[in-house]
Amino acid sequence: MGLKLYGAPASTCSARVKAALEELGVAYEFVPINFATGEHKQPPHISRNPFGQVPALQDGDLTLFESRAITRYIARKYKNGVTDLLKQSDAAAGALVDVWMEVESHQYNPAVSPIFYQIFIVPLFGGTPDQAVIAENVEKLSKILDVYEDRLSKSKYLAGDFISLADLHHLPYTFYLMITHPSLVNSRPHVKAWWEDISSRPACKKVTDEMAAVANASK
Amino acid sequence: MGLKLYGAPASTCSARVKAALEELGVAYEFVPINFATGEHKQPPHISRNPFGQVPALQDGDLTLFESRAITRYIARKYKNGVTDLLKQSDAAAGALVDVWMEVESHQYNPAVSPIFYQIFIVPLFGGTPDQAVIAENVEKLSKILDVYEDRLSKSKYLAGDFISLADLHHLPYTFYLMITHPSLVNSRPHVKAWWEDISSRPACKKVTDEMAAVANASK
Ligand SMILES: N[C@@H](CCC(=O)N[C@@H](CS)C(=O)NCC(=O)O)C(=O)O
Ligand SMILES: N[C@@H](CCC(=O)N[C@@H](CS)C(=O)NCC(=O)O)C(=O)O
Repeated sequence: MGLKLYGAPASTCSARVKAALEELGVAYEFVPINFATGEHKQPPHISRNPFGQVPALQDGDLTLFESRAITRYIARKYKNGVTDLLKQSDAAAGALVDVWMEVESHQYNPAVSPIFYQIFIVPLFGGTPDQAVIAENVEKLSKILDVYEDRLSKSKYLAGDFISLADLHHLPYTFYLMITHPSLVNSRPHVKAWWEDISSRPACKKVTDEMAAVANASK
Repeated sequence: MGLKLYGAPASTCSARVKAALEELGVAYEFVPINFATGEHKQPPHISRNPFGQVPALQDGDLTLFESRAITRYIARKYKNGVTDLLKQSDAAAGALVDVWMEVESHQYNPAVSPIFYQIFIVPLFGGTPDQAVIAENVEKLSKILDVYEDRLSKSKYLAGDFISLADLHHLPYTFYLMITHPSLVNSRPHVKAWWEDISSRPACKKVTDEMAAVANASK
């Protein structure tokens, strides 16, 4: 029985998991969960994720949720001689992967997700984006990206000179940020080069093309 | 050369790391960083953590930041026959540890930290706690703890019948929550039993006693 990824086609959290699966060349079945009918808040989905959210992964008897826990599971199970997205065989490198994964979780994500929410989600419910919230978080993100610029002037990727989950976890929101605020990335040469590198990887392009197709179809 | 933990004595993020160190019986030197003089925003501390925050860990040449990345490093380096806080030798158990660590990061922490901030930090700067922010997050936290109650009715700890980082990461904020909103925990029998179990462990008691001493001294 193969892997099943329950998600929503344009969802950033589902795309985070897809990026890891594609990067490692793992086959999986994508099972769409219908937000419009509230499928995510009802059984059987709440038995997959008790918080009623996507994504969730099913691998035989094991059901997992939280996108960043799922990617860790995939990275450990499917690592190979070419691609090791956690680098745990090297204690120092593995620790730096963890550091920059936590930076994504606790610095980048809290600043970028409200911008995405205001611009893409609020209008879906008939609301008007709150410009003050956007401005406040653009300022926060700008300071965070200054730290990234410095870091990426010293190593090609966030955790070192190798691609890792720390980089891939940034894919979904940065894809949307490049639509709304590209200058935040483009004004920082090392962040720009890093983004161009990541986003042009075949695995990542496949995932962002799928997000773009959904975003365009819903216009 | 031993481990150095740079932190602030009452800081929740420093306490998270101490809990892992104490649970594994690892010796370390605690180096206090003085927030009052802005030591955390200046060199040399910003070379340890470019975001100018605590904690940071130094282990020989390796410097790490982000509390939850530091605890992972400690858990891997110092695991022993008795205590394995990540359980990565068992793929399913290890994945569930990751799931519930992510739940702490992305569900529990975003709801509990604004409550702590309003009640304990805002007054330090001469402000008045925003009761609307507190109420909104108490409501969010209440729903999250309903999920914990259900989970903890099925296993003794969050990831299974073994203590893990997923549990320990909850220690610092839950300690403060028991001062401000104990009924959120005490009204849920399984959450209450879980908290009593964790908080009475000698390692955890040592860490919360230190937080209590600082909290009392600053009264
Ligand atoms: N921290 C979770 C966040 C999950 C999340 O917020 N999922 C969104 C889609 S990106 C969702 O299901 N939203 C519907 C809801 O929260 O009701 C993860 O990374 O998996
Ligand atoms: N996600 C970080 C958060 C670090 C953090 O917020 N540290 C606080 C103390 S608990 C701090 O240094 N605050 C001072 C500041 O942000 O300027 C971690 O877990 O280490």
